[in-house]
Amino acid sequence: MAKVICIGLGPGDPDLMSVKAHRLLAGARIVAYFRKAGRPGQARRMVAGLIPEDAQEWPMEYPVTTEIPFDDPAYNAALAPFYDHWAARLATAPEDVVVLCEGDPFFYGSFMHLHARLPEGQVEVVPGIPGMVGCWTATGRPITWGDDVLTVLPATLPQAELARRIADTDALVVMKIGRNLPRLRAALEQAGRLDDAWLVEHGTMPGERVRRLAEVTEAPYFSIALVHGRGRRP
Amino acid sequence: MAKVICIGLGPGDPDLMSVKAHRLLAGARIVAYFRKAGRPGQARRMVAGLIPEDAQEWPMEYPVTTEIPFDDPAYNAALAPFYDHWAARLATAPEDVVVLCEGDPFFYGSFMHLHARLPEGQVEVVPGIPGMVGCWTATGRPITWGDDVLTVLPATLPQAELARRIADTDALVVMKIGRNLPRLRAALEQAGRLDDAWLVEHGTMPGERVRRLAEVTEAPYFSIALVHGRGRRP
Repeated sequence: MAKVICIGLGPGDPDLMSVKAHRLLAGARIVAYFRKAGRPGQARRMVAGLIPEDAQEWPMEYPVTTEIPFDDPAYNAALAPFYDHWAARLATAPEDVVVLCEGDPFFYGSFMHLHARLPEGQVEVVPGIPGMVGCWTATGRPITWGDDVLTVLPATLPQAELARRIADTDALVVMKIGRNLPRLRAALEQAGRLDDAWLVEHGTMPGERVRRLAEVTEAPYFSIALVHGRGRRP
Repeated sequence: MAKVICIGLGPGDPDLMSVKAHRLLAGARIVAYFRKAGRPGQARRMVAGLIPEDAQEWPMEYPVTTEIPFDDPAYNAALAPFYDHWAARLATAPEDVVVLCEGDPFFYGSFMHLHARLPEGQVEVVPGIPGMVGCWTATGRPITWGDDVLTVLPATLPQAELARRIADTDALVVMKIGRNLPRLRAALEQAGRLDDAWLVEHGTMPGERVRRLAEVTEAPYFSIALVHGRGRRP
């Protein structure tokens, strides 16, 4: 039985992919990846030039073309048949399929929707450097040291909950920003941490940009906000 | 001026090192790494066979031979002159120095004590897959999905604080376990999460072991405890 091998591609720079992921990709016969219809896809773009020329490419195109926000429950409901279809197709592929995944597959990755539908023994996951690690590296400072507590939040949470959790942590990572930026900004201010917050766009990629969050008025969905820890002592 | 390049080695399996870290290591003329006096050192062991034979090795041996626990403030005080010495030596090296670091250098890494002492323009940090990522991969299940909140805690915190934070998160990672295991176990029980907790030892390494934390009575310092998220919806 052929295997489904999901490889974490890391934060963006293809040089930060693991040696193992790189080797699996170079030997792949079938490569699958998610993308929006009509778009090249971020994961596919990251490995441009690394997929063997004679490999088959299976773009898994999201059926949702109108813009349902990712954080709307209707989004996943609409996608269930799509994931069913692709899980069945991957499970019966004639050869091993290498599935591309930005960052790390098990950390907020879309691959989990396929993983949950595939027989356990048929799947292998190769970890990758999560996007947040590339982003804190871009700031040039440690995110945590000593006995710091780190909290990772989606910016989709209500403002009061964001503010409460931000006030209660040493180091902070916030994902899924995009149109949630004003709410995140207000929550950071409420928690007294706005001046310590950074926004990193395209971490480790050509357009990498690190700015104080207080100075930013618009952010892409895949940017990441950070507050560095301070080396708490017990 | 020669550079100091700290490379994250990832969670343990040398195959999970980044392509970039692997290339820097293969071309290194001077390789530095921390270790306890008289021990091979965990970072050095991870790259056995990958350091060029003619490279100089600079083991940076911790001066503390009696066992001061890592979480005792006296530990860092005793180490300040040691870090001063090595920062000065790395900064004036005749050629680029590659410094080895387990996991990711900016995520609870010892390298930060050198980083804080080195001139900013002279240092480069290459991120790595953090140990916790290797450990959650070993469990074969996603750590976070949907709008899960992830909290990373050092097991050195007081039990009441551990319990409060464990009860207040979706997904959980606990580091620095070792002799703090009984306190962590009690805190998990108090928070009603003991039955969901896993302990991963030597994640991605030959001795990898994944067990329910409730069944474990002894854990090495570098094991990691995990509770998986449940895909929270906003």
